[in-house]
Amino acid sequence: MKIGMIGLGKMGFNLALQLHERKFEVEAFDLNENAIEKISSQGISAHRSISSLVQAFEGKKILWMMVPAGDATESVFEQLLKECGEGDIIIDGGNAHYKDSMRRDEQASQKGISFFDCGTSGGTEGARNGACLMVGGDKEKFAEIEEIFKELSVDNGYLHTGPAGSGHYLKMVHNGIEYGMMQAIAEGFEVLDKSPFPYQFEEVAGVFNHGSVIRSWLMELTQSAFSKDKDLSSIKGIMHSSGEGKWTIEEALNLQTATPIIALSLMMRYRSLETDTFSGKVVAALRNEFGGHAVEKSE
Amino acid sequence: MKIGMIGLGKMGFNLALQLHERKFEVEAFDLNENAIEKISSQGISAHRSISSLVQAFEGKKILWMMVPAGDATESVFEQLLKECGEGDIIIDGGNAHYKDSMRRDEQASQKGISFFDCGTSGGTEGARNGACLMVGGDKEKFAEIEEIFKELSVDNGYLHTGPAGSGHYLKMVHNGIEYGMMQAIAEGFEVLDKSPFPYQFEEVAGVFNHGSVIRSWLMELTQSAFSKDKDLSSIKGIMHSSGEGKWTIEEALNLQTATPIIALSLMMRYRSLETDTFSGKVVAALRNEFGGHAVEKSE
Repeated sequence: MKIGMIGLGKMGFNLALQLHERKFEVEAFDLNENAIEKISSQGISAHRSISSLVQAFEGKKILWMMVPAGDATESVFEQLLKECGEGDIIIDGGNAHYKDSMRRDEQASQKGISFFDCGTSGGTEGARNGACLMVGGDKEKFAEIEEIFKELSVDNGYLHTGPAGSGHYLKMVHNGIEYGMMQAIAEGFEVLDKSPFPYQFEEVAGVFNHGSVIRSWLMELTQSAFSKDKDLSSIKGIMHSSGEGKWTIEEALNLQTATPIIALSLMMRYRSLETDTFSGKVVAALRNEFGGHAVEKSE
Repeated sequence: MKIGMIGLGKMGFNLALQLHERKFEVEAFDLNENAIEKISSQGISAHRSISSLVQAFEGKKILWMMVPAGDATESVFEQLLKECGEGDIIIDGGNAHYKDSMRRDEQASQKGISFFDCGTSGGTEGARNGACLMVGGDKEKFAEIEEIFKELSVDNGYLHTGPAGSGHYLKMVHNGIEYGMMQAIAEGFEVLDKSPFPYQFEEVAGVFNHGSVIRSWLMELTQSAFSKDKDLSSIKGIMHSSGEGKWTIEEALNLQTATPIIALSLMMRYRSLETDTFSGKVVAALRNEFGGHAVEKSE
């Protein structure tokens, strides 16, 4: 089976390698010349344009998009819509918003193209050696390409989640859960850091990973991080985010559903982006107004 | 090595069985006649009083307390203080507050008794087949009884955490993290439950457990719960708690440390205990006061 991999970033590159190893015929594309060279050196056929990649297919095309959500995905998708036709298959393995995926499915189906939205979890390591894949799209058509997801995932690590949109929706919620779990772990270690006891954090994460209720892959990553930097003194506590946590909260708001832990995990990330806050100034000023409490002057 | 197990509830009973299997000589005690009979039928020597259990030891006594935190632990500890002397060892494997454990260590050491506070995680299954043990107390004395913890835990599943108190402190924080992780998972499934897609929750938890970032023992338990009741329709969403989450927050308050996710996970448990809230009435009444917004009458 021949598959086109569009986008050779950290995830796409590793997925292409894994497909290649598992005896799929891979046609790869990226705008970046360096990525083209790297993938070529692995024995994978590489293209400098999507048109060239598409021409490498005779008959049915199966194209896997692995580009950043938003403009990049939209632009690639638009080009694929033009290049593809009846019977072709487009898989979006990125982190698109599920509503965009539902709309793209609609656009694709008008041309007889099958669209699948595939939420991909497990990080770059998973992309290389076995990921977790949550795939929305037509169930019958899914059976035709199920082999791809089976090969790219760990055992039992893929699921047909329902109609188009449901794969990216599930991945969005997965990431929301991830935000909350990470913040919970982080707060625990914050307490330990200020505690009266001289804990060795790598040891602590290690024992948590062996038989405790909170053993998890995230705790293994915690252990790994502390093994490299015992108190993380080399990095700042600035927590970026890339959208799915925010979408989970937007969805929860639309559903009028209380998700305070996920919401606050996101807010704590936003808080971490600022060294000082305007809200802090307002509260300090008010305490001074009503009670004459001291304020700290800015420099 | 002979060990006295005091308290044969779900945890103590399983720990006693595991010790027995692993060739320790076990002397067991419980107030409950049924527990006595059950443990005796497993070939373990059982006692109807702590004095009787203590008399089964010649020379150094090693006594493991596995009774509920609070009054039960205090009362057993007081009796053990009377029955024990120089060179004896008391291990508290329950969920005592770490400050109580520090005080008990002080009291024990005045009589030449060594005290260890052992945080025990992994549930009843862990108690039976290999737990996660976090042990505070004198390091040199610890070496004398390390074998016990090694045998009762999974591989690499025990840690000497520091001085007395540090074991129960770490277990307290572990439980705080657990509250946050559980609430994050729960909120994710709440969104899925209200989502536009017909997810099968057992399948979802299953795929999350295979290669995803949020794979964890708690997610495995989630999968197990959905396998027995696909939408949990047979139970109410009332979330009890047993103290350690509250203690984690009390500790965070004393340390002036922001732990909003753990705090709010606890508050959501409290919220779940009430079918209606007084705070809800207050907000509804206020909206009515200023804007004439409708209120719903109580029956």
